[in-house]
Amino acid sequence: MTVVDLTGALSEDRSPAVVLAPVAELPPRRTPVRTDLSTEELHPSLEDPALTSMNLLNEIANHYPDAVSFAAGRPYEEFWDVDDLPRYLARFTEHLRTDLGYSEERVRRTLFQYGRTKGIVHELVAANLELDEDIRVDPESIVVTVGCQEAMVLVLRALRSGPKDVLLAVSPTYVGLTGAARLVDMPVLPVASGAAGIDFDDLLDQVQGARAAGLRPRALYVMPDFANPSGVSMTEKTRRTLLQLAREEDFLLLEDNPYGLFHSGERVPTCKALDEQRRVVYLGSFAKTVLPGARVGYVVADQTVTGPDGSAGLLADELSKIKSMLTVNTPALAQAIVGGKLLEHGCSLVQANEGVREVYAANRARLADGLAARFGTGSPVTWNAPAGGFFVVVTVPFPADDALLTRSARDYGVLWTPMHHFYDVDGHGRNGTRSLRLSCSVLTPEQIDTGLDRLALFITDELARTRRGAEVR
Amino acid sequence: MTVVDLTGALSEDRSPAVVLAPVAELPPRRTPVRTDLSTEELHPSLEDPALTSMNLLNEIANHYPDAVSFAAGRPYEEFWDVDDLPRYLARFTEHLRTDLGYSEERVRRTLFQYGRTKGIVHELVAANLELDEDIRVDPESIVVTVGCQEAMVLVLRALRSGPKDVLLAVSPTYVGLTGAARLVDMPVLPVASGAAGIDFDDLLDQVQGARAAGLRPRALYVMPDFANPSGVSMTEKTRRTLLQLAREEDFLLLEDNPYGLFHSGERVPTCKALDEQRRVVYLGSFAKTVLPGARVGYVVADQTVTGPDGSAGLLADELSKIKSMLTVNTPALAQAIVGGKLLEHGCSLVQANEGVREVYAANRARLADGLAARFGTGSPVTWNAPAGGFFVVVTVPFPADDALLTRSARDYGVLWTPMHHFYDVDGHGRNGTRSLRLSCSVLTPEQIDTGLDRLALFITDELARTRRGAEVR
Repeated sequence: MTVVDLTGALSEDRSPAVVLAPVAELPPRRTPVRTDLSTEELHPSLEDPALTSMNLLNEIANHYPDAVSFAAGRPYEEFWDVDDLPRYLARFTEHLRTDLGYSEERVRRTLFQYGRTKGIVHELVAANLELDEDIRVDPESIVVTVGCQEAMVLVLRALRSGPKDVLLAVSPTYVGLTGAARLVDMPVLPVASGAAGIDFDDLLDQVQGARAAGLRPRALYVMPDFANPSGVSMTEKTRRTLLQLAREEDFLLLEDNPYGLFHSGERVPTCKALDEQRRVVYLGSFAKTVLPGARVGYVVADQTVTGPDGSAGLLADELSKIKSMLTVNTPALAQAIVGGKLLEHGCSLVQANEGVREVYAANRARLADGLAARFGTGSPVTWNAPAGGFFVVVTVPFPADDALLTRSARDYGVLWTPMHHFYDVDGHGRNGTRSLRLSCSVLTPEQIDTGLDRLALFITDELARTRRGAEVR
Repeated sequence: MTVVDLTGALSEDRSPAVVLAPVAELPPRRTPVRTDLSTEELHPSLEDPALTSMNLLNEIANHYPDAVSFAAGRPYEEFWDVDDLPRYLARFTEHLRTDLGYSEERVRRTLFQYGRTKGIVHELVAANLELDEDIRVDPESIVVTVGCQEAMVLVLRALRSGPKDVLLAVSPTYVGLTGAARLVDMPVLPVASGAAGIDFDDLLDQVQGARAAGLRPRALYVMPDFANPSGVSMTEKTRRTLLQLAREEDFLLLEDNPYGLFHSGERVPTCKALDEQRRVVYLGSFAKTVLPGARVGYVVADQTVTGPDGSAGLLADELSKIKSMLTVNTPALAQAIVGGKLLEHGCSLVQANEGVREVYAANRARLADGLAARFGTGSPVTWNAPAGGFFVVVTVPFPADDALLTRSARDYGVLWTPMHHFYDVDGHGRNGTRSLRLSCSVLTPEQIDTGLDRLALFITDELARTRRGAEVR
């Protein structure tokens, strides 16, 4: 079943009991005796595109299961083995016994019982951050979360203290961030990305404009490495300037880094690695480097927080209080699986991901070469060439909206993600956006070629249609 | 390490890296170069007793590790075996292959990849509800959650559509519910419990009073079976009256049922089993019946919701949208463990929990007999005798506050939970509450006896102190 993955995270329904209804022929939902509730009585986020886009796109995708999907942002699956799971579990259990000297009773309790709110693999995560990212943090400043999504909710819930608090986000923005902000009623002010990954003039305009309007910009959300959806990365110079502006204008940076290990060229230090004044709250994910099904992510929040009595603690401990009322703790079993893999690889995931890194690099190259072969010089179709990650953005000379996606899937058998879904303008996509996101993380080379053939035919026909439309006018 | 478990869920820090500092001698937190944030800049819930009580009580508990703890509400651990985990995983995997006919690729994808937002064990949960609770629901109306805590957050986030929406809760109330309400800024109006588990006069006063104040009571939170913390249960007649009032006054019932299987006498049907008009949103947990470490709970939300276009869907699908931005999906690995145990027992957890049910019953009896032996007729000390669950409430003729708990732990070596933490009066406990919660879910008979000896000595001394104080006046 082909499924759109709008976010690279929020993903498909593939239960045997559930196949989402196709867009064109929604079956009548079983009619109730009477209506119990209406959407007007529910939180406004439930009618917000940030929460509904994915469902819509999944419905389109599920209606065309034979289409080649450049939409799915899921990680590559071929290196996974079900037999790894008990081995990871055993490895972590052995770690508790041997390295930590736990008694059998304590091992059992650690896996079965309620556990530490901030997590049980925080020491391993800290070791991983030092080895793979050159980030040195106190393990106590780490909160292990139910995927990076929960980490974003924790941070935004903490920072949204009242109606004045707003968030800044480089636009186009990961939909999961926008959705998390909706759940805590926190406005998101878009900041232009540009070729550098962020437009500093627009950033300052937004920050100062918000202040002038009596608002308090608390943080800027950025994905400096191979951003979802733009694929754009920031240079080290840009990152250093960003840190300086964060200090000068007094806001935090929320750095999200799910794709950093999947680079082709040299790696650039993360903002957190360059952070000398605790300006960066670092959002981490093991979804792409270990497995998504464990739903294990984390947040590094080493900022100090002073209480009314003058005592200073860690922001991580404040986030932990929120987590205790959100999910209590991250499932120990899921942490054990991730911990087991970390232990098997000496806490570094670079080598462990070498094979999949090469797959992604080869797929990106094949996608770029394939686009060049099909849209030569002089073509009005352009695209970027990210040096890592899952995503490439193609720009076309006509609006790439959901109706067009439906036509592309229905008549040409190829799926992609309309970029307008990633532009959150007053809770609506930027209409008329003329670009589409292509992901190649779960496709074979042959599927990439087939998909590009279909995409080329679709775009060529659409260009002709557009021209005819122009001539008629 | 003895640890207070205020909620029966929100639980202990037992990482080797972390031993919470004792209340009396908090070590100086590493002083920051400068303060990054202050609590005034963070969400008000972070200073709210609903989120801070547990930490405080854990600190007291951790300061007195040798004290006998009547505070820990964790499930009994002796029947757990680490070797069960891979077996449960294998059993669920076999189910995917054999019962559902999944290919190896699909099995792998189901366990490793992002998954269905509403969960992958919903059919098994529906079968379990029919077998063990006589609740018949469409599996599509079930959302599998990261513990029951996430289920509460999903429901309250959906129902808190604006400033008018308020929640009702039988008081004393499970702290996890109050905490979840804080995270979505939803006021909680307390409704008196009384001996019946709810005071209907007070309920009507609260509902009508709220309406008169321009508020909209959306739902009433109840734990009809062996409530945490009161231990009180509702009769079938009370439950039927409650359903009738919910219809007449147009609010939902949020029924939380973590302890239903741990009964001594006859079981009473749940409100959901008696619900004929979809008035009940049912909150389920596998924390006590399978294991807490999986963090798998669920919500049954079969209410219909009508959208702006007149189309009718399920409340479960609205909750799913929120979940997609909170945790994306419940870890497949954790669901697989719970699913495996359900499958091993034909989806019924009654027989599977017979051994632990007997342990809890014996512990409750020993606690009751022990109290009777130590506080005979004529004693000003009284207690209730719940026919199930983990908790007994002891009433004493003096305020049982946190200072007294500290003295009890320090001078007498016995821990309990001051009941005032469960009274949420304008965000503060009901001062001067003269009762304490005793839990016996993780104690041996010998520990119960020792703990009661210490408790009796402590209370006797405290009574003498109180009398002397009275004479002085």
